[in-house]
Amino acid sequence: MQSIEDLPTPAVLIDLEVLERNVARMQERAREAGVHLRPHAKTHKSPEVARMQLAAGARGLTLAKTSEAEVFADQGFDDIFLAYPIVGTGKAHRLLALADRIHLRVGIDSVEGARGLGAAFHAAGRRLPALLKIDCGFHRVGVAPEDAVTMAHAVANVPGIELVGVFTHAGHGYGGQTPEAVATIGGEEGRIVAAIAEAVRAAGLPVDEVSLGSTPTVRAAIAQPGVTECRPGTYVYNDRSQVALGSAGPQDCAMTVLATVVSVSGRDRAVVDAGSKTLSTDPMRPAADGNGLVVGRQSRIARVSEEHGVIAVAAGESFRIGERVRILPNHACAVSNLHDRLVAVRAGRVEGGIRVAARGCVQ
Amino acid sequence: MQSIEDLPTPAVLIDLEVLERNVARMQERAREAGVHLRPHAKTHKSPEVARMQLAAGARGLTLAKTSEAEVFADQGFDDIFLAYPIVGTGKAHRLLALADRIHLRVGIDSVEGARGLGAAFHAAGRRLPALLKIDCGFHRVGVAPEDAVTMAHAVANVPGIELVGVFTHAGHGYGGQTPEAVATIGGEEGRIVAAIAEAVRAAGLPVDEVSLGSTPTVRAAIAQPGVTECRPGTYVYNDRSQVALGSAGPQDCAMTVLATVVSVSGRDRAVVDAGSKTLSTDPMRPAADGNGLVVGRQSRIARVSEEHGVIAVAAGESFRIGERVRILPNHACAVSNLHDRLVAVRAGRVEGGIRVAARGCVQ
Repeated sequence: MQSIEDLPTPAVLIDLEVLERNVARMQERAREAGVHLRPHAKTHKSPEVARMQLAAGARGLTLAKTSEAEVFADQGFDDIFLAYPIVGTGKAHRLLALADRIHLRVGIDSVEGARGLGAAFHAAGRRLPALLKIDCGFHRVGVAPEDAVTMAHAVANVPGIELVGVFTHAGHGYGGQTPEAVATIGGEEGRIVAAIAEAVRAAGLPVDEVSLGSTPTVRAAIAQPGVTECRPGTYVYNDRSQVALGSAGPQDCAMTVLATVVSVSGRDRAVVDAGSKTLSTDPMRPAADGNGLVVGRQSRIARVSEEHGVIAVAAGESFRIGERVRILPNHACAVSNLHDRLVAVRAGRVEGGIRVAARGCVQ
Repeated sequence: MQSIEDLPTPAVLIDLEVLERNVARMQERAREAGVHLRPHAKTHKSPEVARMQLAAGARGLTLAKTSEAEVFADQGFDDIFLAYPIVGTGKAHRLLALADRIHLRVGIDSVEGARGLGAAFHAAGRRLPALLKIDCGFHRVGVAPEDAVTMAHAVANVPGIELVGVFTHAGHGYGGQTPEAVATIGGEEGRIVAAIAEAVRAAGLPVDEVSLGSTPTVRAAIAQPGVTECRPGTYVYNDRSQVALGSAGPQDCAMTVLATVVSVSGRDRAVVDAGSKTLSTDPMRPAADGNGLVVGRQSRIARVSEEHGVIAVAAGESFRIGERVRILPNHACAVSNLHDRLVAVRAGRVEGGIRVAARGCVQ
């Protein structure tokens, strides 16, 4: 087996022990709450990691884009929820082809969107199972709670669409300044969407699925009665933002970036060979604070350009040219999307590669 | 030929007419100043575009990483400057193999770095041509001007290294608040590195090459006497930051992102299917201002998540679900690095694809 020390840098490492523990722990948390786990595979974009999640008990996968579902369907995954308001005739026909071979559900937040997808399915004598997206406070996509019952009726009446549930995503949990504030947002996420499901049912529409979740909010959200499914993603690797938000400890971070110090031309800075092409420019959440933390040190990456990570050297620390460091990135999902292959390690040895098969699938 | 209207979204479009004009204009500018143009290929990472640059008169290519040079060497490019302080024994052996088949030069900013590369070349009875990196004010890598002569001697004495020039990069030009401020930084960039070249020569080291440049600063920099080569990159596509910095007009931007409006759930916002996986999270320069501009409108992308671009709808404007928009991204190089293939268009029709062959080459 290859040693980590022999790897060319920069390289994205995944610690398999931590990954396995993260997969097991979230599954156990969902089981205890009595909800299904349908992890968002955007964090890893990898069939190998998705297989671990399904083997642990996950119900299926969550993804956003049609092309991502096509990659995973080609790898044998047969139960996918595209939690995204997909729009357009071309996409509708690809979804129809997908629905022939997998159990497919999609998100919807407008009658126009529903009609676009429904037309293709209706013409084929089929119905596309859809969940109505509720805006529980993130204000990105989704219908406002007060409009939900009206919109549920409108969507359910679109030929070719079968309304099977409601879903939400409390992305604003990433702005929670304390773990308590994040938990409060998670609790609201659960209460809002469960109440809407009740109201929609009371209005005569038998929606079964009540789906929600993000890694920071999931614990508080699935504690609310009426929730049936959760969709966290980042928990599988975790990252510096999850640590800052209180949803993971440093020991729960499976992803680190191995980098080499290439320049120490200033007294208070050192430069590594991992920049925005390796770490992304995604900010730390909930508060921006550079581009990554040097593991085991106080120093952090203060700024990046494409191939340079500039370490602001903390008082009492120093770096030398040729030294290798491990960097905890701000956002694991963004790092995965920059690399075709990650390196799987266990106990300091290289065990193989993790192929990011759905990297770059934006359509 | 396919119409742009039939493309799946999101898609990154390159307008060939604008690209050709940009390539010709920068070449003419270098010719007028009497300097060689060695464009930084990081903006496009594409052999097709690099061939256009060489056909127009460029001397060779600039790149940063060893793996990028390997991709371009495999495509027949035989003159590459790696403007990066490459460190490590593994990389040194790859550079030695590259130097067998192409005219290769590298950047250096430390004796330790020079020794690491020089050892492999010296053992093979060879010398690696190197340029000493000067810090002209960006404070990332490079030696301070006052240390340059001493370091030039030290590097020139490393077995296996042949010091052939000095180079710099005024990355702080991207912080220039007015076009005049950017030009002032460019002028300093040229004067500093030319003066150092003179001092190094006066100290008995015959360095010929004096290389510098970035798209914003290049015009003022190459006007300084003594400069021999410039290395702008972004000019080939341009982007919203170049427009803000005054180095390009909106009509000079060859790269736009075609996206579809997928949600208009809030009165003051619309959401498109292009997020950070398509546009990157790179900020606009010199001042952060969202993630892109909707072409032909006042509205801009106010925030992104991975698959969502949230448009802050400007007063008097509106968007409807299914509508297609073109987005001018903040940073063209970062967009190229997210996609395996861009779409080449001319006069509203699709002409083919541009393969981003060196995408993701970080090692």
